[in-house]
Amino acid sequence: MIIVVKKGSDKKQVDNLLKWITHQGLKVDVSVGDNSTVIGLVGDTSKIDIDLVHSMDIVDTVKRIQEPYKCANRKFHPEDTIVDIGGHKFGGDNFQIIAGPCSIESEKQIIGIAEAVKKAGANLLRGGAFKPRTSPYAFQGLRENGLDLLVKAKQETGMPIVTELMSIRHIDLFKDVDLVQIGARNMQNFELLKEVGRMGKPVLLKRGLANTIEEWLMSAEYIMSEGCKDIILCERGIRTFEPLTRNTLDLSAIPLLKELTHLPVIVDPSHASGLSRLVKPLSLAAVGVGADGLMVEVHNDPPHALCDGAQSIRPEQFADIVSRIDIMLPLVNKVKK
Amino acid sequence: MIIVVKKGSDKKQVDNLLKWITHQGLKVDVSVGDNSTVIGLVGDTSKIDIDLVHSMDIVDTVKRIQEPYKCANRKFHPEDTIVDIGGHKFGGDNFQIIAGPCSIESEKQIIGIAEAVKKAGANLLRGGAFKPRTSPYAFQGLRENGLDLLVKAKQETGMPIVTELMSIRHIDLFKDVDLVQIGARNMQNFELLKEVGRMGKPVLLKRGLANTIEEWLMSAEYIMSEGCKDIILCERGIRTFEPLTRNTLDLSAIPLLKELTHLPVIVDPSHASGLSRLVKPLSLAAVGVGADGLMVEVHNDPPHALCDGAQSIRPEQFADIVSRIDIMLPLVNKVKK
Amino acid sequence: MIIVVKKGSDKKQVDNLLKWITHQGLKVDVSVGDNSTVIGLVGDTSKIDIDLVHSMDIVDTVKRIQEPYKCANRKFHPEDTIVDIGGHKFGGDNFQIIAGPCSIESEKQIIGIAEAVKKAGANLLRGGAFKPRTSPYAFQGLRENGLDLLVKAKQETGMPIVTELMSIRHIDLFKDVDLVQIGARNMQNFELLKEVGRMGKPVLLKRGLANTIEEWLMSAEYIMSEGCKDIILCERGIRTFEPLTRNTLDLSAIPLLKELTHLPVIVDPSHASGLSRLVKPLSLAAVGVGADGLMVEVHNDPPHALCDGAQSIRPEQFADIVSRIDIMLPLVNKVKK
Amino acid sequence: MIIVVKKGSDKKQVDNLLKWITHQGLKVDVSVGDNSTVIGLVGDTSKIDIDLVHSMDIVDTVKRIQEPYKCANRKFHPEDTIVDIGGHKFGGDNFQIIAGPCSIESEKQIIGIAEAVKKAGANLLRGGAFKPRTSPYAFQGLRENGLDLLVKAKQETGMPIVTELMSIRHIDLFKDVDLVQIGARNMQNFELLKEVGRMGKPVLLKRGLANTIEEWLMSAEYIMSEGCKDIILCERGIRTFEPLTRNTLDLSAIPLLKELTHLPVIVDPSHASGLSRLVKPLSLAAVGVGADGLMVEVHNDPPHALCDGAQSIRPEQFADIVSRIDIMLPLVNKVKK
Repeated sequence: MIIVVKKGSDKKQVDNLLKWITHQGLKVDVSVGDNSTVIGLVGDTSKIDIDLVHSMDIVDTVKRIQEPYKCANRKFHPEDTIVDIGGHKFGGDNFQIIAGPCSIESEKQIIGIAEAVKKAGANLLRGGAFKPRTSPYAFQGLRENGLDLLVKAKQETGMPIVTELMSIRHIDLFKDVDLVQIGARNMQNFELLKEVGRMGKPVLLKRGLANTIEEWLMSAEYIMSEGCKDIILCERGIRTFEPLTRNTLDLSAIPLLKELTHLPVIVDPSHASGLSRLVKPLSLAAVGVGADGLMVEVHNDPPHALCDGAQSIRPEQFADIVSRIDIMLPLVNKVKK
Repeated sequence: MIIVVKKGSDKKQVDNLLKWITHQGLKVDVSVGDNSTVIGLVGDTSKIDIDLVHSMDIVDTVKRIQEPYKCANRKFHPEDTIVDIGGHKFGGDNFQIIAGPCSIESEKQIIGIAEAVKKAGANLLRGGAFKPRTSPYAFQGLRENGLDLLVKAKQETGMPIVTELMSIRHIDLFKDVDLVQIGARNMQNFELLKEVGRMGKPVLLKRGLANTIEEWLMSAEYIMSEGCKDIILCERGIRTFEPLTRNTLDLSAIPLLKELTHLPVIVDPSHASGLSRLVKPLSLAAVGVGADGLMVEVHNDPPHALCDGAQSIRPEQFADIVSRIDIMLPLVNKVKK
Repeated sequence: MIIVVKKGSDKKQVDNLLKWITHQGLKVDVSVGDNSTVIGLVGDTSKIDIDLVHSMDIVDTVKRIQEPYKCANRKFHPEDTIVDIGGHKFGGDNFQIIAGPCSIESEKQIIGIAEAVKKAGANLLRGGAFKPRTSPYAFQGLRENGLDLLVKAKQETGMPIVTELMSIRHIDLFKDVDLVQIGARNMQNFELLKEVGRMGKPVLLKRGLANTIEEWLMSAEYIMSEGCKDIILCERGIRTFEPLTRNTLDLSAIPLLKELTHLPVIVDPSHASGLSRLVKPLSLAAVGVGADGLMVEVHNDPPHALCDGAQSIRPEQFADIVSRIDIMLPLVNKVKK
Repeated sequence: MIIVVKKGSDKKQVDNLLKWITHQGLKVDVSVGDNSTVIGLVGDTSKIDIDLVHSMDIVDTVKRIQEPYKCANRKFHPEDTIVDIGGHKFGGDNFQIIAGPCSIESEKQIIGIAEAVKKAGANLLRGGAFKPRTSPYAFQGLRENGLDLLVKAKQETGMPIVTELMSIRHIDLFKDVDLVQIGARNMQNFELLKEVGRMGKPVLLKRGLANTIEEWLMSAEYIMSEGCKDIILCERGIRTFEPLTRNTLDLSAIPLLKELTHLPVIVDPSHASGLSRLVKPLSLAAVGVGADGLMVEVHNDPPHALCDGAQSIRPEQFADIVSRIDIMLPLVNKVKK
């Protein structure tokens, strides 16, 4: 960390700052220039609150040199992490597709879709049981019953299952879930992150609505600091000024994340735009940009879905997308296994 | 709600849409034009998922006419809600100031600050016991012990207390807290909102980092739909592209909220910018724009604070701000009681 | 256009509004509901200022049904526009690659790069003569001399040339330029747009730093309303809160634009992120999402470039990207001709 | 400027970078740490392109210590600049109000409004002759004729006049204009900025739609580097994700600008929100935050205005706002002269 102290700052205040830094167990390297004094901090600065330093009156600017995340940092863990979900691998040269309906609605529905997406090339099944909805009056998912139906679909098809956890009250219900999803709105629900990190299960961590890549990795760090090593990141679009799409899919984040972290990164093209007709082009773009996989909403009867149905595609459209992805994968040195 | 159907849409699909709408208990009013067909929905549309409708292939655009919130809507509740916290009123022509440290650090610290801010003109005491921190390695607050110290300060000074609830696990610990704060990062933690709504306590609901005014009111609606009527909204800055301030304080939101809702709205000038030297000008601006109160971080020894200290001001600076506010209040038809 | 009038509005004011609308040559269709009155406007509403209507005290909300652009609108021009630049076609099933250095530096440099990118598969040559720089102290391009060198490279290699026009003072200098670029910072320089529309040349219109898709099409409309029909849109990233990339490339805009307009749309992966190592993944993503072409910065000696050099890739890296694109094109039904 | 070089970077590349820096006339100070090498640049770094350095493969991060603007920088010019427009002073402890209609429509209209706002307390008259409109089909202002009418109003009332310059073609027409406005959409029209800087007139520089404070000051620097010293900055709202207001007024920018620059800063509450009923609260907020003045749209007959009329307030509302401002000014140590 480098701290630039304002020209003409009170010497006593500067000394206090230096004392405070060394008190945190760090060494300092001070170089005095004509217009400013630059303090270099040597040691583990991850505990230093950069906002606190920035807000001090004598501080002009402050800049981290070392990223504040450790467990998730590729610098300290150069090899790709491979997350194995029921025999299906995320990370490295693997490419995985998770598919399924937005909401679980009935046994017939979830098993029907599971079979269809498995046939079309998906390896994991997703389905919403607990649904985060902006309105308290909107359908909130089948909740416990939805989970039971998802587990049935797993038994029936052999596909590992992925679903969202919204509250620590539901942790015990998730014992048969293979990959626990933390949704965008809970990305900085820090108390939930800590408890999820102690569940002993792999976690799918979606990016928050308007969170930076660094904050996202810090949320992964929360989970990892509790002992969990198997995290898959999922880009799902960020909030911008553009009104025509619900979110703006930030595909540049994928190659950047591959540099910064060893964790696998997948893309959710369905929630990104909120428009089912954009799922195909955004899926191919996600493959081109180097994602480790996709999570796609597929529905057997979109017009009758209870929730978000229209952002879902039908099984035959999904199969068409998968067939094009299969051709693209060698171009990005990936294999679907 | 008005739905504009694309020109040349399949008649069967349009009929399906009309059937689906009437199945939700609404009436439709269809008018066919040269370039599009416009469907007006008559009745309570708050359960209709606008994103779902928007994503249908035959739909060109869709627009709500009626706001999706009811309990929080001024249309159905024209008088200002007055929230009484231990005899101090928020809303109407009242102006209230909440003050205190970012984090509770010791009995001496919290009682010392409480006495200082009370003397300077604050009516309520704030202090962080559970702290939402971006990094798992940063100080997370004194937690249970912090709450105990805050309650001691309440007993000592008679000031009602405000502090943040981060997890449903801590609800029982909050029995002596007068105003329960939901922080920005939990504004869309819907499971928490529901349980908070059943606590039987007034709630201070901060705006999320990048949430719209409508989403904010929908989160208030979550709490109100569980029976809670006493909600105070708190604007604390939103995320923009500007890097010089931590957030951009959205003061235009205050007069807009006064139109849309009957709930009181206060401003947090400390977290908005992250710079203590901006607290004074932003406080006066908040009064000018018509806020019902302020929540200000005050510290007796900013350079030694464990967290966010530097965004705090000292008691003498706080007293100067309060004295200027007192002169301004008649201009905006407010009284500090 | 649909205007929702507030409940309980003054009848005289509503009548004034209706009179004003009919005075603009439009018909009105009024339907009175319990909570609001809805006015439908029938006719050409492109001259109606939606902001003006929105700001009227009696207006609750207002919503356009018809897009405010006509010449650029696919509804009135369903077939793809094909823009022919010196025999190279943009639009339809064609895919084109424009390549060249950020700044023109010397005859040797520009001809060297032109030959290299032509060999690797580019059909058009780009190069900056007039450079828009945030700082007045930064290198502003070789200006007139740069243009002369670019024309020499055109003569030498037969490649059509593309370069940015920043001022109406330079229009006469552009007589040998094949495709006139309007940069992001001038996207809403309306006086320039009008004059460019009268130049009789095809125009490459970049998206503004923080402009919506609709504003972008309205700027195309400015050019087209002066008689120019040959416009190519170029997505180059938008401004968001994410600090790790200079801009966030908005690839969802491509398939949306293909619905809204008949004009070709290309992608600039170099300026989008400001990081040369992201050019390859973003180029493949742009192909996957359905772009009609790419504009890529290529430099023969990046470390010595005078400007933006490091966001450029070298010819051999460019050739590798082109070879992968060639394999991808059939998947998106495109051909490089 | 501080450059952090990645661990394990190729020594030859690092040497090239050091050579390139010293070639720019700067000295370097290199300190090698365990995880990175830090290069400090000593000297005038304003010509260094930070984006170029950032994009180099061996560079981890780069941070400016010195701001890239000089003429506009308070560090090199500690006293407030006072801009005198026809005897009315901006900056220091002065507070000025500019008022007038969005568009000039007729002699009667502009003179009528001028007299009304002068009586209510405005010192300068604004009025749009050339109007930047998103749509080519919208009213573009009376242009040359509008300017003539504005000059007549100046002769009639003695008020100095302010109006927007959109093209270098119109410079000669502006000889009687006292304060030349550069609008938000032209804030980075660098060729226009340079020519405006040579006009020998004071300039009112509005903030761009989505420009940072630093970019805004760099645009002021463009004008100042051509010899102009009299620049007034005008905050008018920035683009965010919030749809209820046209822009989000960034009032935190005002106290920040007072630290960074010696130039006066005023606020435009009319364009900020696009809602006339927000003009009063935002005006009082602007005074509270320490602005040097206001620019307010006032109209004598809002419902019949040709453009933006509804964001205008009437003279009697304007007079009410001014009377409240008069009471507030002593609180912020300002005087209206």
